[in-house]
Amino acid sequence: MNKAQLVAEIKRKGSYLCVGLDTDLEKIPAHLRGDKEGMLKFNESIIEATADLCVAYKPNLAFYEQYGERGWGILKETIQMIPDSCFVIADAKRGDIGNTAGYYAKAIFNDLGADAITVAPYMGKDAIMPFLEFEDKWTIVLGLTSNQGAADFQYHGTPPLYEQVIRKCAEWGSPEQLMYVVGATRPEDLSAIREMVPNHFFLVPGVGAQGGSLSAVSKAALTLDAGLLVNSSRGILYAGSDEDFAVAARKSAFVLQQEMKSLLG
Amino acid sequence: MNKAQLVAEIKRKGSYLCVGLDTDLEKIPAHLRGDKEGMLKFNESIIEATADLCVAYKPNLAFYEQYGERGWGILKETIQMIPDSCFVIADAKRGDIGNTAGYYAKAIFNDLGADAITVAPYMGKDAIMPFLEFEDKWTIVLGLTSNQGAADFQYHGTPPLYEQVIRKCAEWGSPEQLMYVVGATRPEDLSAIREMVPNHFFLVPGVGAQGGSLSAVSKAALTLDAGLLVNSSRGILYAGSDEDFAVAARKSAFVLQQEMKSLLG
Repeated sequence: MNKAQLVAEIKRKGSYLCVGLDTDLEKIPAHLRGDKEGMLKFNESIIEATADLCVAYKPNLAFYEQYGERGWGILKETIQMIPDSCFVIADAKRGDIGNTAGYYAKAIFNDLGADAITVAPYMGKDAIMPFLEFEDKWTIVLGLTSNQGAADFQYHGTPPLYEQVIRKCAEWGSPEQLMYVVGATRPEDLSAIREMVPNHFFLVPGVGAQGGSLSAVSKAALTLDAGLLVNSSRGILYAGSDEDFAVAARKSAFVLQQEMKSLLG
Repeated sequence: MNKAQLVAEIKRKGSYLCVGLDTDLEKIPAHLRGDKEGMLKFNESIIEATADLCVAYKPNLAFYEQYGERGWGILKETIQMIPDSCFVIADAKRGDIGNTAGYYAKAIFNDLGADAITVAPYMGKDAIMPFLEFEDKWTIVLGLTSNQGAADFQYHGTPPLYEQVIRKCAEWGSPEQLMYVVGATRPEDLSAIREMVPNHFFLVPGVGAQGGSLSAVSKAALTLDAGLLVNSSRGILYAGSDEDFAVAARKSAFVLQQEMKSLLG
């Protein structure tokens, strides 16, 4: 999916919601918990219940890899169930170089069929460029994350490392192919980053369960093209804990979508 | 494998060689190239030919993940073929946080059965700690890498980022459970890092094909416990290109092991 198509979906749906498919066998409703195939049934119900309210899905690979070969298969089947109107982000945080990075790109873009991959910048340009060579595919670089440990290294130096990462990566990848992960927990940093890169999309985790506010994030970083994908995982997936979990998930997604529609307005 | 066992194997074998199982279907001998099962046969021959000359194997996950579910299976079967006297490093460069990092740890340590995983530090302490909770398993943090792009971010700030990463991680993980990836291409940096962390093992890529010198690396960073695992991938795997590739691989490994034996001496 290219940028024009993504922006058109955002406007059509009145939503920049990304649903994080961090499906945890220990948290899904009891009737699906028996074995790992329950993950697939759970994901199918969540996708059916939310696909018209969100523009993206973001499975985190760790949740699937822990189940080895079959986990990889469940991830692939999940991605195949996502309708074409939704953008698919493989939250893999890969960070290797050269031909090795190219093989990760093949795994994510070709084998899994995702539109985008999250990538860690520590190894520099050689860890970013191989992903940018794929047409109509996206590289989403970790910029400033919303976890506590972000402070350990991302603020290192002057200017802080995250700023150096964001500026450098903007030289390597255009807003048509590169996005940034920017946490929701510090809206003042979000505004500053929006000034640095006015046209790149941000993938924003940390709204909801992690404490960020959707309206503060949107005021800080929304652009004419939206320029934002705001992720919610637990707040949607585990909104309900019994057989009507999909109804509860839809309600939670609807609340976010309605707020987004008015913020886009 | 714990540190005492690893050091005992290094002394017994007169070797701190790690063989990188970066098995590339396009580079293995023609008679094994037909389909991905050839990777497994190639790996089996390489392991049989080198297991008494090296102390560790390091498959890079990208080479396997590109083949999806079956790729994961081939990786797992490869690891099962490695004898207990060898340390197994899953070169995965994962970097996620909290419970997500814990799931990667389960995938690598439990499902695949590796002894160690390489980890990217960008997200800070929450991206390192979950791996350290596994007994007799190892976390190998990217410190200073040997690729060209290392200069983009790893030297950022004063002190340079890589130094901050190495010092902070030493507060979180002891030499019994944490190692560093330190590139071979700048021996002067290696000496300085050895002064910062005198007792942690270093995993050193970049010898051979990437231009680093085994004797310079060893003089800069060898300790009484060796404290080094020096990796060679292409120089061993593709030493030969026809049916006698395993003989050629053994010869290449033997040259490195003999030099290591005398450096340990």
